[in-house]
Amino acid sequence: MKKEQPIGVFDSGLGGLTVVKSLIEQMPDEDIIYFGDTARVPYGSRSSETIQTYACQDVEFLLQYQVKAVVIACNTADSMARTLIEERYDLPVVGVVGPAAQKAVAQTANGKIGVIGTKATVNSGAYEKAVKAIDPFMRVFSRACPLLVPLVENGRFQRNDKVVRIILDEYLEPLHRENIDTLVLGCTHYPLLKEAVQACLPDVNIISSGEASTDTLRELLTRHNLLNDTKERGEHRYFVSDDAATFTENAEIFLGRSLDGAVQCITL
Amino acid sequence: MKKEQPIGVFDSGLGGLTVVKSLIEQMPDEDIIYFGDTARVPYGSRSSETIQTYACQDVEFLLQYQVKAVVIACNTADSMARTLIEERYDLPVVGVVGPAAQKAVAQTANGKIGVIGTKATVNSGAYEKAVKAIDPFMRVFSRACPLLVPLVENGRFQRNDKVVRIILDEYLEPLHRENIDTLVLGCTHYPLLKEAVQACLPDVNIISSGEASTDTLRELLTRHNLLNDTKERGEHRYFVSDDAATFTENAEIFLGRSLDGAVQCITL
Repeated sequence: MKKEQPIGVFDSGLGGLTVVKSLIEQMPDEDIIYFGDTARVPYGSRSSETIQTYACQDVEFLLQYQVKAVVIACNTADSMARTLIEERYDLPVVGVVGPAAQKAVAQTANGKIGVIGTKATVNSGAYEKAVKAIDPFMRVFSRACPLLVPLVENGRFQRNDKVVRIILDEYLEPLHRENIDTLVLGCTHYPLLKEAVQACLPDVNIISSGEASTDTLRELLTRHNLLNDTKERGEHRYFVSDDAATFTENAEIFLGRSLDGAVQCITL
Repeated sequence: MKKEQPIGVFDSGLGGLTVVKSLIEQMPDEDIIYFGDTARVPYGSRSSETIQTYACQDVEFLLQYQVKAVVIACNTADSMARTLIEERYDLPVVGVVGPAAQKAVAQTANGKIGVIGTKATVNSGAYEKAVKAIDPFMRVFSRACPLLVPLVENGRFQRNDKVVRIILDEYLEPLHRENIDTLVLGCTHYPLLKEAVQACLPDVNIISSGEASTDTLRELLTRHNLLNDTKERGEHRYFVSDDAATFTENAEIFLGRSLDGAVQCITL
């Protein structure tokens, strides 16, 4: 493994770009290969077998580019397919669940952690397991929020959007009642909703799974002397499995900047 | 072709069950094979090439069961792939767009027809073309409503649901402003929203594409002496490409009754 090799990142679609955003901010020298499986998005409502099949195909696509590490920038794929990916492929894998769980345990004061995510992520119990593995005295309250991804993908995430507010109030009310002091945004689409969520839960500390993942990856690469330190701005390449035009159109809201590389549509 | 052969119906997921509902009501003797492509739902936001590939695979699955006709119970697949399916396969194909367009032209008084559907259906211009082919003096006003499918699939379609009301008002307001007197529900999920839509547009005549499709199929089978008249209640078999459990759980709201056959999960 050489430090010049790119980092591979995959997600079911657009959401993983929020992870790319923090990768670019924190490790600007790294080359990045991104794959968004837009022909089969969303993963969040599919069965575990299907998600595992899709996630392995995504990793195999990235392996063609000699990536030095893979970031699973999708909470659903990380929850359902991480163990299988680690067993099957011989390269460092960083997910989003583990790092966010660690950060939540470190930051909670009352030991009550909330998690919101897709149906598949929440049903997998992945966050609960990850938190309890670090500290079995922690209590985790999870809530599936299946309407948030479609809302975000249709440009509705502003804190003053009436629909967003009603839906968030419904989803978050049971977590508020449990008196959580920390909430994990367990889906890479949700950082866009951060302000709206904060408005519903003003006293709660909000953790974005993507940012936590970037911290963990940087530590890992540093420890193994694999951090790219060429001091040249990294190259970023984007691949999707369907409809490059719509991906390009929507990428900016997730990336926080316009896309700095061409998007290529490939068949898996 | 024999009258005892089943009718094949396919959709990207659950929505096509509203078409099965009217098939069962109008032709109770017919055997039905239903396929819902739940591993790759939704079709409505994908590219035309991808939708064409998926739709042909769906038809090929149904052909294994010696179906006497295929119903494309998905406006998106019908809009994007109908011509290709008709060219490639030698069997009668009934869609949803053509029949609904005919009904709309027959029923409008002021010649102003509204159409709501997925992004792919609306962008294809299929309804506009179908309506103008019948009567070029008609005016068609279309609106993509990408949030309606996720809302319905999450059980939100009641006319008193606040979120449904806000979203429908936003989507329908431009059609109302055009003074349409007839509205086609151009997505097989939308019949569940019929009451809510009617509440927003109380004076507009609403046409469900699935019901129109069933009328056309019945005429076609009658004309070719292919209507099953055994006077025995037909058998209904359901196949999906992912997660039979969730499909079974949600089927009742689309079918208006509990599922009368087992659901089998297959790999395409």
